[in-house]
Amino acid sequence: MAKASIGVVGLGVMGRNLVLNIERNGFHVAVYNRTQSKMQAFLQGEAAGKHITGSDSYPALMAQLEKPRCVLLMVTAGSAVDAGIEEIKPFLEPGDILIDGGNSYFMDTERRSLALTAEGLHFVGMGVSGGEEGALWGPSIMPGGTPEAWQALAPILRKIAAKAEEDGEPCVTHIGPRGAGHYVKTVHNGIEYADMQLIAEIYDLLSRGAGLPAAELAGIFDEWNRGELRSYLIEITAKILRRTDEITGKPLVEMVLDEAQQKGTGKWTSQNAFDIGAPIPTINAAVESRILSSLKAERVAASRVLRGPSPRFTGDRAALVEAARAALYASKILSYAQGMSLLRIASAEYDYHLDLAEIARIWRAGCIIRAGLLGDITAAYRRNPALSNLLLDDAFRQAVESRQAALRHVLQTAIGLGIPALALGSALAYYDAYRSERLPANLTQAQRDFFGAHTYRRVDQEGIFHTDWE
Amino acid sequence: MAKASIGVVGLGVMGRNLVLNIERNGFHVAVYNRTQSKMQAFLQGEAAGKHITGSDSYPALMAQLEKPRCVLLMVTAGSAVDAGIEEIKPFLEPGDILIDGGNSYFMDTERRSLALTAEGLHFVGMGVSGGEEGALWGPSIMPGGTPEAWQALAPILRKIAAKAEEDGEPCVTHIGPRGAGHYVKTVHNGIEYADMQLIAEIYDLLSRGAGLPAAELAGIFDEWNRGELRSYLIEITAKILRRTDEITGKPLVEMVLDEAQQKGTGKWTSQNAFDIGAPIPTINAAVESRILSSLKAERVAASRVLRGPSPRFTGDRAALVEAARAALYASKILSYAQGMSLLRIASAEYDYHLDLAEIARIWRAGCIIRAGLLGDITAAYRRNPALSNLLLDDAFRQAVESRQAALRHVLQTAIGLGIPALALGSALAYYDAYRSERLPANLTQAQRDFFGAHTYRRVDQEGIFHTDWE
Repeated sequence: MAKASIGVVGLGVMGRNLVLNIERNGFHVAVYNRTQSKMQAFLQGEAAGKHITGSDSYPALMAQLEKPRCVLLMVTAGSAVDAGIEEIKPFLEPGDILIDGGNSYFMDTERRSLALTAEGLHFVGMGVSGGEEGALWGPSIMPGGTPEAWQALAPILRKIAAKAEEDGEPCVTHIGPRGAGHYVKTVHNGIEYADMQLIAEIYDLLSRGAGLPAAELAGIFDEWNRGELRSYLIEITAKILRRTDEITGKPLVEMVLDEAQQKGTGKWTSQNAFDIGAPIPTINAAVESRILSSLKAERVAASRVLRGPSPRFTGDRAALVEAARAALYASKILSYAQGMSLLRIASAEYDYHLDLAEIARIWRAGCIIRAGLLGDITAAYRRNPALSNLLLDDAFRQAVESRQAALRHVLQTAIGLGIPALALGSALAYYDAYRSERLPANLTQAQRDFFGAHTYRRVDQEGIFHTDWE
Repeated sequence: MAKASIGVVGLGVMGRNLVLNIERNGFHVAVYNRTQSKMQAFLQGEAAGKHITGSDSYPALMAQLEKPRCVLLMVTAGSAVDAGIEEIKPFLEPGDILIDGGNSYFMDTERRSLALTAEGLHFVGMGVSGGEEGALWGPSIMPGGTPEAWQALAPILRKIAAKAEEDGEPCVTHIGPRGAGHYVKTVHNGIEYADMQLIAEIYDLLSRGAGLPAAELAGIFDEWNRGELRSYLIEITAKILRRTDEITGKPLVEMVLDEAQQKGTGKWTSQNAFDIGAPIPTINAAVESRILSSLKAERVAASRVLRGPSPRFTGDRAALVEAARAALYASKILSYAQGMSLLRIASAEYDYHLDLAEIARIWRAGCIIRAGLLGDITAAYRRNPALSNLLLDDAFRQAVESRQAALRHVLQTAIGLGIPALALGSALAYYDAYRSERLPANLTQAQRDFFGAHTYRRVDQEGIFHTDWE
């Protein structure tokens, strides 16, 4: 029997679906799972009759693999990855490739990469986006690691990755060294949080504010999905809004508890951006909004006593819907401008040599944030790979300039109605701050010099100054 | 010669000023500095004729101290603290008290506290706020550690701490165990960032927007300092705005470069709040605003091409100034509500048993955020120590409710003028989110369930649900 092209350790739903995807694309896959009964169930179920073979031990798994051996670890991020690496390592040889396909913290991947490289192994931290369906039918894949490891894995990864509608190109590329793949996956998730929160705030304004029923909103999102907002998240929002609850007969979305959960990658993005000095207020606002939503009991109690204006909009609904569409697109661009700038700053900080055009290109399909916009972002960075901010690309500059009045109007409306719009507000504030030659940080610096002798610089001459302000 | 009550290691400006403060209050202080010439200069200069005695080694320092020995380490936060502890430790005995008076990261203090406790020593992580002047004339002091250490140090700390104007009480209290003191100091600094940014945004709106000259603004801030906004930061803002540059004859603040710097404590507050799930969007906005300000070259370039509305306000200036005053007070309350809630959540998370009334009480004088407001916050937590949010206190609820229209108006004005107001906007969004029984997180949860089978809860029954949304 021919050797297997890759071994997969860990047969959770993501692992199983990746195995099926790889096999469907013409590769023989060897699998191992600590709980052997789970592996047997898979082999006798979904994997039956396919080029997928089980192993009852790590040596048995290794014996099935072509050299250099490629082993994909699909276990829960965290200590399970370290444990898995320690278990597998004794059976690997120099030149073999170990891949972590989970949502690992990129600094863990940096650490593991350095340790395994010292032992002559290739370690690939690989971000995989697209959820269960993506894993099975084509995810967006973000592998980091050595060029040698990429060369060995590329034939498989190109086959199993999503293909962009526009040009059929696979949504995978060599992201960069060490933790670069997991870093970019983390930022992808931060952007995903922001996309989702911007949509949620627009939904809140049109639903709670303008009183539009879910069915009507479903039609609006369907229509938006045929224009510049075309994206997976807008598409599923329409489907969600259209769904009726079988128990109550009401729109199902209205029966869902408004406590958003999170798994940490959005938070990591915000925390890292603070560390490296990259402004991403809209991603922060999205993470904050999930935290605020989670205080449900407190909010219910507060809603009984803290008063505000009437949330009912009395103006022209159609005009508000059209302004909301433009505001959502403008704020989405502003959010991507932040995310791409974060990648640019991180690339320099961690020596990742990120190719922003390539990253936008592989986000065009397979992943949660796939959107028509990403083709335009790819084009912008191809036109100018050194673009310091997406907003300085002519097309995006014009797109935001022509929609800023709508964004301002939508925000002013939300503020007047008492409907929170933390992410939309942060997007506009980012725009207004970024295009301000002069910000009031001069006062901040003067205050710091006043109370802490922290010194300041001047606008008209070089040097470090201190004033005795009293 | 009588033994010294305390030894101080590290004679930077903060160390020197604390030594002078302690001695002025009737204590004999022994000092040590690695660079002995610096110590000699101090002994022969500011310390001449005072009960301050030098030491040429750690054993010599220890020999001067009463038992149990109290040694205050005043070195730069970070590895210098670890190095100092390792150097001093061999000369300490069980029961001795080692104090870190720097701006240490609270998790470092947790680690050091556990290690030193295991060796029978008391370790006190002590936050000190008030800058150089505070250190000399009376800072706000936030010591964490064992009750025994607090008992030993209290006689000195109560003497040297600032005294509140209202009741003459010293601005020091036993904050809690282990890293509690440094944690509370970190949050103090986060709140300080927010206070400063809110003032900066109001200054920007009135200066860039309404065209008020610095001298007129100085008078406005002076007047505000006589009312509910009375605080050190408002007071120094007026002084700063009044100061003329000797070189150009222009207001000095306008010659200060608008690139705000930071030393990390604000960032730590934001990062920690994300970790423990506490919403502090206004502190985040303040940290973000410093980061945005630091991108000066990018902003200058962007200002040439990214267009916005005219920033010139054409309405009633006096009305805007009055609205700005009310908006600043409301947003300041909203910012403190976030900071105090963070302390409440952290107290449970880290088992700190924080007394929020006591913490507000010791911030009334000596520290950078000292303000009339802090007396009211103290009173609110004395009325109800279990208050889940400051906004639910009747006095504060009414204060925000009656000023929210002004805050909304100021924000709508800033948005219309194209002047960024990230912190003001986040404060209002916090209020509107916190008082929303229903937030659009139901849509977020439905999306997460759609693409990742992350499940959701329902509003009308218990349980975990998943829907096949397609």
